[in-house]
Amino acid sequence: MYRSHNCGELNISHKNEEVTLSGWVQKSRNKGFIVWIDLRDRYGITQLVFDEERTSLKILEQAQQLGREFVIQIHGTVIERAAKNPNMITGEIEILVSQLTILNKANIPPFTIEDETDGGEELRMKYRYLDIRRNPVKDNLIFRHKVTQEVRNYLTKEGFIEVETPYLIKSTPEGARDFVVPSRMNEGQFYALPQSPQTFKQLLMVGGLDKYFQIVKCFRDEDLRADRQPEFTQIDCEMSFIEQEDILDAFEGLTRHLLKKINGAEVEKFPRIQYDDAIRLYGNDKPDIRFGMQFGELNHVSQHKEFNVFNSAELVVGIAVPNGNSFSRKDIDKLIKWLKRPQIGAQGMVYVRCNEDGTFKSSVDKFYAHDDFSKWAEITGAKKGDLICVLSGISAKVRTQLSALRMEIAEHLGLRKPNEFAPLWVLDFPLLEWDEDAQRYHAMHHPFTSPKPGQLELLKTNPSSVKANAYDLVLNGNEIGGGSIRIHDKETQAIMFDYLGFTPEEAKAQFGFLMDAFQYGAPPHGGLAFGLDRLVAILGGQETIRDFIAFPKNNSGRDVMIDAPSSLDKEQLKELYLKLDL
Amino acid sequence: MYRSHNCGELNISHKNEEVTLSGWVQKSRNKGFIVWIDLRDRYGITQLVFDEERTSLKILEQAQQLGREFVIQIHGTVIERAAKNPNMITGEIEILVSQLTILNKANIPPFTIEDETDGGEELRMKYRYLDIRRNPVKDNLIFRHKVTQEVRNYLTKEGFIEVETPYLIKSTPEGARDFVVPSRMNEGQFYALPQSPQTFKQLLMVGGLDKYFQIVKCFRDEDLRADRQPEFTQIDCEMSFIEQEDILDAFEGLTRHLLKKINGAEVEKFPRIQYDDAIRLYGNDKPDIRFGMQFGELNHVSQHKEFNVFNSAELVVGIAVPNGNSFSRKDIDKLIKWLKRPQIGAQGMVYVRCNEDGTFKSSVDKFYAHDDFSKWAEITGAKKGDLICVLSGISAKVRTQLSALRMEIAEHLGLRKPNEFAPLWVLDFPLLEWDEDAQRYHAMHHPFTSPKPGQLELLKTNPSSVKANAYDLVLNGNEIGGGSIRIHDKETQAIMFDYLGFTPEEAKAQFGFLMDAFQYGAPPHGGLAFGLDRLVAILGGQETIRDFIAFPKNNSGRDVMIDAPSSLDKEQLKELYLKLDL
Repeated sequence: MYRSHNCGELNISHKNEEVTLSGWVQKSRNKGFIVWIDLRDRYGITQLVFDEERTSLKILEQAQQLGREFVIQIHGTVIERAAKNPNMITGEIEILVSQLTILNKANIPPFTIEDETDGGEELRMKYRYLDIRRNPVKDNLIFRHKVTQEVRNYLTKEGFIEVETPYLIKSTPEGARDFVVPSRMNEGQFYALPQSPQTFKQLLMVGGLDKYFQIVKCFRDEDLRADRQPEFTQIDCEMSFIEQEDILDAFEGLTRHLLKKINGAEVEKFPRIQYDDAIRLYGNDKPDIRFGMQFGELNHVSQHKEFNVFNSAELVVGIAVPNGNSFSRKDIDKLIKWLKRPQIGAQGMVYVRCNEDGTFKSSVDKFYAHDDFSKWAEITGAKKGDLICVLSGISAKVRTQLSALRMEIAEHLGLRKPNEFAPLWVLDFPLLEWDEDAQRYHAMHHPFTSPKPGQLELLKTNPSSVKANAYDLVLNGNEIGGGSIRIHDKETQAIMFDYLGFTPEEAKAQFGFLMDAFQYGAPPHGGLAFGLDRLVAILGGQETIRDFIAFPKNNSGRDVMIDAPSSLDKEQLKELYLKLDL
Repeated sequence: MYRSHNCGELNISHKNEEVTLSGWVQKSRNKGFIVWIDLRDRYGITQLVFDEERTSLKILEQAQQLGREFVIQIHGTVIERAAKNPNMITGEIEILVSQLTILNKANIPPFTIEDETDGGEELRMKYRYLDIRRNPVKDNLIFRHKVTQEVRNYLTKEGFIEVETPYLIKSTPEGARDFVVPSRMNEGQFYALPQSPQTFKQLLMVGGLDKYFQIVKCFRDEDLRADRQPEFTQIDCEMSFIEQEDILDAFEGLTRHLLKKINGAEVEKFPRIQYDDAIRLYGNDKPDIRFGMQFGELNHVSQHKEFNVFNSAELVVGIAVPNGNSFSRKDIDKLIKWLKRPQIGAQGMVYVRCNEDGTFKSSVDKFYAHDDFSKWAEITGAKKGDLICVLSGISAKVRTQLSALRMEIAEHLGLRKPNEFAPLWVLDFPLLEWDEDAQRYHAMHHPFTSPKPGQLELLKTNPSSVKANAYDLVLNGNEIGGGSIRIHDKETQAIMFDYLGFTPEEAKAQFGFLMDAFQYGAPPHGGLAFGLDRLVAILGGQETIRDFIAFPKNNSGRDVMIDAPSSLDKEQLKELYLKLDL
């Protein structure tokens, strides 16, 4: 038996008990005649004491030799501490050690195993197993487990069945790039790893399973942007005999349950916004509504004056920064510089100070009068003491820029509070999005998403105006889930494939099984998938998903700890009927 | 709203209620003036009635046109049935339909959607989404969900943390063949899909996570034997600061919990058997102990007589079939024929009838006397009325043959009762097994398994005698789990790699990260993995794992429904720096 207790549970009620503990040496204070050691395991820290009066000389000497992260087992007596630490569960006691066994030695770790470590990102990833010993990382993993357990228990209670769908499936050119897996038994052929279990969950609905979920790994071979992983986890859900309202209800219920159970946050019915309104009011489709600063469009009150920059702009749009008049000239210059960085790409910013006395002071005073600014203030909702920030240019670009500015300012003002939760449904996404490179439309969600009733005809005349039965769930400015009501009849699906540029042969080769399935009695169905990595990070009050993944990959898709991917020997390639073509 | 109730919940207490139901047409009886339809969904079946007195003509006519598996929505009134069906939850009522909507038509299904279907295996796999509509398949999937929920809740309560380990890892030549995944971002390099999360769970232990589990897909590119899948699911577990006894306790607890919760079976402390004894007494390492028929070794009481077949045999071994004297000559000839099939490969079988009067009648009467047979009976435990079956030959082969015979007879006698559960720990497996093809030893479990204390030295002198801290959990003659106490220091691991034929460079290239990790304070640790597919099948009283997998692959590793694997276009291969080499 390696331990009678763990390192996080002993307290004054155990006084005088004989105990056995095992763990890692967190730190050691050696005063010569007395040695204290903090012994650490997953559950906490317990202080050990060795002294020349009460400990055998041999053990005292051994204790003096223990280095950081040595794995030891001790036997001893629980005694009351002289100097108590009220901040620790075990802070009232220490263990007077009578036996000491070194279970494993340790080299000096490459970074300190402390909540605040001196290790950089790269070093921590290479020695991820040491990084996991640190409380912030360990606690994140335990937190993730707690969230997934809550998800499973909630959905199970609601009648959902978790079904495992296959990982070795079929490659399809639609959507992102697949990871593929050569088949040895089927010469020259390849499986693909799923980007999502989309078609399988739809087939489960055709199979009558009614309510399905799965917490499942998905794979996308994309060039990795910051904080994207080639493998990621979804909470994948699907329901039959439902309308959009049923789906929103079901997963609003799940999200509310998590916010309450995990964060103790009570959230009322989630607000909803149309996609078009989200773009108009916040400049993006995943607005953070923990704070205001909605966009005010100023074309009609800023154009046809002397200021040519605005006159020539497609869109003039501003936000009112609460109490922003307190920004110094230097603060504002910094914001303008930030906006002009290539990542944002704004040409500049016009600002208007709303003084307490009702006057305005702006960077464009010579073009506009008090009445003009009054109108700007009214439209952006600016009050005395605020600062109006105005950008102009091509609509899509300027909205993205102002959206970034809004978030930057909110961050700066501390308005993005990690412990405040503001969920939001974004509804009625467009069915299609224009792909500049390919000069064609793509399905915005995926090709199985149904258009709004009666809008199928519009595909021919005004494709970009067609709305889909598609919705996203946004939390604190992050998309945490998205889904749609699916097409469930072969005819509509064929029209969609045709519209997306599939020949009937291609559609049959790639999705024939689904089209076939639709002919054998497919029920109306729809669903939603949550991005678990992101969801967990946000519930944990953080935004970096990597901190909630046990063994993440870096931006080149490498696991720097195990050094993968790596080369194969020729024999292995030959068995797979492959040659390198470098 | 598609339904107010599901098809499995209405009863006489709902009489006169207006309800809306949706589902599939299970069957229809059309008497012209009256039509009955069984409406089915996941939850059950409800009878609908349309008749010319109470239903509008238009709806009655529509109802007459409904084919099997049409998806419909109806609105109507719950009424009391004239002819009640006490075997159905909804058997006291039917719905008098006032509104009917066809949600989707259906082609005639290629096989009947009934508990007993007329569809063959291949057809059912091609249309798996229809197969899933059948109760036996649907119920198996729901059963699987129930089992995994119980596993997760039990282990969570016991302090285990579920951690997701990566799927895109590194290929290693040890063990079975890996599935590999070419990396586009790392030219000419490949990931591998995990055969198990073995090294990662060990790194989590080095990371201090203490108690880990994961229900996780694993992958093996092996030539598929019957009832093996290229992707399969494990309940993967690992613990730190434990000895073998702690592991056995923990997972005996889990298994007992499942047997009780899922099957209502109370099982006492699981018996244990040494690997060597299992081989000696049952001829294999996963004995079914729901019944007796232990092996009796007969060399010393059957050799040195006139019967040359036995005299020249390395092993003469028999079993006593309870009440086997009732087998006719024809029964016995059938068994002998069965034994001689190439799959079993026995030369023949000697049998001894143990008559009720204490005499014996055998196929070798001319070589042996009554006293000889008395000794055989004593050693095999044969009683009056039994039949002793004796095989002879090379030890390993004859044990395998007799083991197969024992199972065949037990099956025949109905001793393999699906609702009886006999778990068994098999302990002290050999560390190594001899690979005839490669003319070298392989790790029997895997290269991370620790030898029994003090046996490391034996590796040099008598390698096949070295026992490992390795154990299997057997249930009803199937290995449902296996594991070991791991090596946790770099030196022992280096000796093992060396012994298994790795050069230090190879060991470093493939497992350097693990060896490194062991230098930074690895705790003693060990674990176990259950094969979930098999476990679920056995708890479900069946033996075919395919019946408990939503979308299984066939024996060529193909998914015949989606037709995967499939070929890639050249562009896709080029991006991966690959050429086909057919």
